[in-house]
Amino acid sequence: MSRNVLLLPGDGIGPEIVAEAEKVLNKVNDQFNLGLTFDKALVGGAAIDATDSPLPDETLEKARNADAILLGAVGGPQWDSLPMAKRPEKGLLGLRSNLQLFANLRPAILYQQLASASSLKPEVVSGLDILIVRELTGGIYFGQPRGVRELENGERQGYNTYQYTESEIRRIGRVAFEAAQQRGKKLCSVDKANVLEVTVLWREVMEDLKREYPDVELSHMYVDNAAMQLVRAPKQFDVIVTGNMFGDILSDEAAMLTGSIGMLPSASLNSEKQGMYEPCHGSAPDIAGQGIANPLATIISAAMMLRYSLNEEKAAEAIEAAVSKVLDQGLRTADIMSDGGKKVSTREMGEAVLNAL
Amino acid sequence: MSRNVLLLPGDGIGPEIVAEAEKVLNKVNDQFNLGLTFDKALVGGAAIDATDSPLPDETLEKARNADAILLGAVGGPQWDSLPMAKRPEKGLLGLRSNLQLFANLRPAILYQQLASASSLKPEVVSGLDILIVRELTGGIYFGQPRGVRELENGERQGYNTYQYTESEIRRIGRVAFEAAQQRGKKLCSVDKANVLEVTVLWREVMEDLKREYPDVELSHMYVDNAAMQLVRAPKQFDVIVTGNMFGDILSDEAAMLTGSIGMLPSASLNSEKQGMYEPCHGSAPDIAGQGIANPLATIISAAMMLRYSLNEEKAAEAIEAAVSKVLDQGLRTADIMSDGGKKVSTREMGEAVLNAL
Ligand SMILES: CC(C)[C@H](C(=O)O)[C@@H](O)C(=O)O
Ligand SMILES: CC(C)[C@H](C(=O)O)[C@@H](O)C(=O)O
Repeated sequence: MSRNVLLLPGDGIGPEIVAEAEKVLNKVNDQFNLGLTFDKALVGGAAIDATDSPLPDETLEKARNADAILLGAVGGPQWDSLPMAKRPEKGLLGLRSNLQLFANLRPAILYQQLASASSLKPEVVSGLDILIVRELTGGIYFGQPRGVRELENGERQGYNTYQYTESEIRRIGRVAFEAAQQRGKKLCSVDKANVLEVTVLWREVMEDLKREYPDVELSHMYVDNAAMQLVRAPKQFDVIVTGNMFGDILSDEAAMLTGSIGMLPSASLNSEKQGMYEPCHGSAPDIAGQGIANPLATIISAAMMLRYSLNEEKAAEAIEAAVSKVLDQGLRTADIMSDGGKKVSTREMGEAVLNAL
Repeated sequence: MSRNVLLLPGDGIGPEIVAEAEKVLNKVNDQFNLGLTFDKALVGGAAIDATDSPLPDETLEKARNADAILLGAVGGPQWDSLPMAKRPEKGLLGLRSNLQLFANLRPAILYQQLASASSLKPEVVSGLDILIVRELTGGIYFGQPRGVRELENGERQGYNTYQYTESEIRRIGRVAFEAAQQRGKKLCSVDKANVLEVTVLWREVMEDLKREYPDVELSHMYVDNAAMQLVRAPKQFDVIVTGNMFGDILSDEAAMLTGSIGMLPSASLNSEKQGMYEPCHGSAPDIAGQGIANPLATIISAAMMLRYSLNEEKAAEAIEAAVSKVLDQGLRTADIMSDGGKKVSTREMGEAVLNAL
């Protein structure tokens, strides 16, 4: 049985960090006899430059046929003035939507070795381990109608539509309840049900689902309060489930609580557990090409891929153990550097993980 | 010249904290010969219980005729299951919309005396002084169409509309640019222009406005990044301007960075500088009626009211100085209590401010 992994380096630091993850994947492929084959394709700005489209047909075709996808990052200032439909982000959004990768899992975990990197007090974040489950193929990101129209008085009005159907809410709800069952059995659903009708329906469906998961404690929180509570006392959360837009905001806020966003992976899954895996951080155009980016979030994303889409728990654990070992050795890329650390480049960090495997 | 101030105690701890602010206002009214007259009305849950409407006509009438309004807070669990149109929040939203209070000013200031209350490291937040300017009468809060509909396949879909016209964006933009001119001359406009068309227009109008304020440095940030940057390095910001929904989330997050949300005021102004002033915190039903709530955010909101809507800078400063003095004296309500503080009740805190005046 051969399984195919598609690598999508993308833009900015994407190619540098995916290159290191590729080496790590090659090594565990041999070590654990995984039978993985690898392919590569263009997406985002890199694809725009080469083909004039952020998501070329060839890339989409390869993605559909892949068992799992590892993505670097997309976007950069050189493409910022393009019209919406031609921007690098449309490559990412197109993959999510075409493959129906509706379940975005974003862990916010504090690595004990990097505790001092957080801007929060140690007692507030030590041991932090939250999972944010974000709906990824609906909500205001994809709602129709959308655009800019001219009103009768001649002025322009921009508009977008925030919408969810019961079945969209139910399927992401199930993912979140199941994740909570595997973890601390606490699920917090975040909405703005005191103002937005679409989230009144969201809350209702979550309440309905609760009956199927009697072992999970469900609570509801307004999004403004959630943004506060993440700062005040993040350890009160186990699993958070929310829509696409609120999830975008809260998962980035939660990631930053750890102070080491260069360490955080993410998974985007469809109902066949086919998945796209990517670091939480973006394309960081300001440091692209300098060989100083942190490849660990991408390497940890590769571990997540082995676990969730390829069912290779042992190989996943081996990678995670190797990452922990290099941190114990004091190796640090610039973004997680602190007193006493040994500063290394992107490639040196990748090599160190290889050696630790 | 007599000017009228309308007091809207509202729900939960609202009546307790507004009572203390009222005493403070009465005292400066005498001391500074302000010629203020006071009136009171029902709003929110209290109004629902008495009149079946969260915003009775009589209240709206009084609000229209007031020179300024001081609001406690609205909402509580006993009204949470009411239909959207009958909820306490509609009282607040109705006031904002009917009086066209489009400019919501939310300072996030760290009181040096309370620095230890923050969950962030002292060096990250010491001296923090951000102003968030939130658009308050448009965006997805008020966009039409909205509701829950049945689709052809029989399932329900919830939907809301996020919309802004150029003129709505321009008027809040001007408020923000002018505020930045009075402060550190840096304005950060927050949007999601890589995904949402309505915020592409937002960004365009802000860029347009920039030419009228050449002394202000304008930057743009995506909302997910802003949520991160507030945690990572909040002091990079001077003034932030954003729409209603993003502003709801970011202003609460920013407020919590200080660790003392019980200290933070807010102002909601229309183009005649008529304004509604309220503490940033909510109605805190869990501690209502116990006499332990912190009245300082409401008292500081009263000072803001004197400054912005009533043009009484001296009286405003006197109140602020009195608040600073009671903090120096070590007086603390439960929410801001820390080692060495002297714990006081709502009323004792109010009395202390009166004595310090
Ligand atoms: C690049 C952008 C379109 C994307 C999003 O908003 O979903 C990113 O912020 C993310 O969270 O993956
Ligand atoms: C009570 C609620 C409707 C309100 C809002 O969302 O605007 C509150 O959170 C606020 O920020 O003033």
